[in-house]
Amino acid sequence: MAVSLAAPLRFDVVSLFPDFFVSPLASGLLGKAIDRGIAEVHLINPRDFATDKHHRVDDEPYGGGVGMLMKPEPIFAAVEALPCLPRREVILMTPQGEPLQQPLLQTLAADYDQIVIICGHYEGVDERVLHLVTREVSLGDFVLTCGEIPALALINGVTRLRPGTVGKADSLKYESFEAGLLDYPQYTRPANFRSWQVPEILRSGNHAAIAQWRQQQQQQRTQTRRPDLYQKWLEQQSNLEPPQS
Amino acid sequence: MAVSLAAPLRFDVVSLFPDFFVSPLASGLLGKAIDRGIAEVHLINPRDFATDKHHRVDDEPYGGGVGMLMKPEPIFAAVEALPCLPRREVILMTPQGEPLQQPLLQTLAADYDQIVIICGHYEGVDERVLHLVTREVSLGDFVLTCGEIPALALINGVTRLRPGTVGKADSLKYESFEAGLLDYPQYTRPANFRSWQVPEILRSGNHAAIAQWRQQQQQQRTQTRRPDLYQKWLEQQSNLEPPQS
Repeated sequence: MAVSLAAPLRFDVVSLFPDFFVSPLASGLLGKAIDRGIAEVHLINPRDFATDKHHRVDDEPYGGGVGMLMKPEPIFAAVEALPCLPRREVILMTPQGEPLQQPLLQTLAADYDQIVIICGHYEGVDERVLHLVTREVSLGDFVLTCGEIPALALINGVTRLRPGTVGKADSLKYESFEAGLLDYPQYTRPANFRSWQVPEILRSGNHAAIAQWRQQQQQQRTQTRRPDLYQKWLEQQSNLEPPQS
Repeated sequence: MAVSLAAPLRFDVVSLFPDFFVSPLASGLLGKAIDRGIAEVHLINPRDFATDKHHRVDDEPYGGGVGMLMKPEPIFAAVEALPCLPRREVILMTPQGEPLQQPLLQTLAADYDQIVIICGHYEGVDERVLHLVTREVSLGDFVLTCGEIPALALINGVTRLRPGTVGKADSLKYESFEAGLLDYPQYTRPANFRSWQVPEILRSGNHAAIAQWRQQQQQQRTQTRRPDLYQKWLEQQSNLEPPQS
């Protein structure tokens, strides 16, 4: 088995449902990266740190309202029981956080030894948990039943960027959002599938023309599908400030 | 066990790593919703539909480039082997798609009987797979090693909105993004935790004042953290068109 030369990136996931992670962490490229020692994932259940006899982790919200909140004490106790590596981030996954984007994944992959992830549940967590937290991150503008899926996305996206996870470093370079544009259309064999042909140019062997076609496709696609990204990309290209309104 | 009165929403997930889904589908509220017959999730592996003796599902990209693409034939064969319910959507999870947001989850939960989800892998899928697909959806502007995590987010977010998944229908109503604003801060016992107090107003019993405080907090938070969302919310409130530039 190949062994990573760098120290593994340590994830500590504070979750009421640690069993959630069993099969995803054993599957695909992420599973392999963990096997190779590129990342390690520790699961910690705040319920094990609840001090009352019922191991209660939730309670009703002050001021009324439906649903239950995660209590602060078991979360503090769980995080405080963890070892602390020099460069550590403590992230709460919450729809109120900074939206997850590629530059954040790059920062986390490059600058940290340890990432603690707190998964929210029920209607949310007691606001005072923010005193533990160095960053709040949202998977996007939608609501899920739990923070485990966002945590898994974060672990996957960060680990993917660590050396050794993806076979060739090049294969990171051209992907969507790392160049600021959507990807170009890609084709593999057969050249003719149900009468849909692979574009002639991709079979031409003319590498310069192929590179140009791909660049045009990326720009066109991004402009059509994601004018917001395209605008950002244009601004980066020209090194100009966004137009003043 | 409570049984749902409505027909279950059927998900068919086309994935090279069906084992990925084992523990997440058995966990938490999503696991319970599946137990109760609110949703059912079928896993189908395109590798079982590869017709060559090595069951090959990937191949090199035309025109050169690193990494492998998913071939079109096994994906077509897998999807074409599925039953077809009257109101069906076939979704490819890809960073090139429409960004996942709450209104899309609401549409999918309300208008469909069957949602087929194709999980991309390797460097992507052959472009001709789009002939099968009715919608391309992106989890966000970041790159993961696989489409299984985005698929899981979609299944969770849609199932959550089906009647019976979340205990009280009310508990959907006030959450972030369904009202167009971020959530207000929430607190539970103890009132004093490590000298951090629950705000006095939430312990006042004055329901009108609490409602007003929460609304103010939502607006302030959204304005500070997510000016993009706040702008949209203001526009909705005033029923005005966005300002012309």
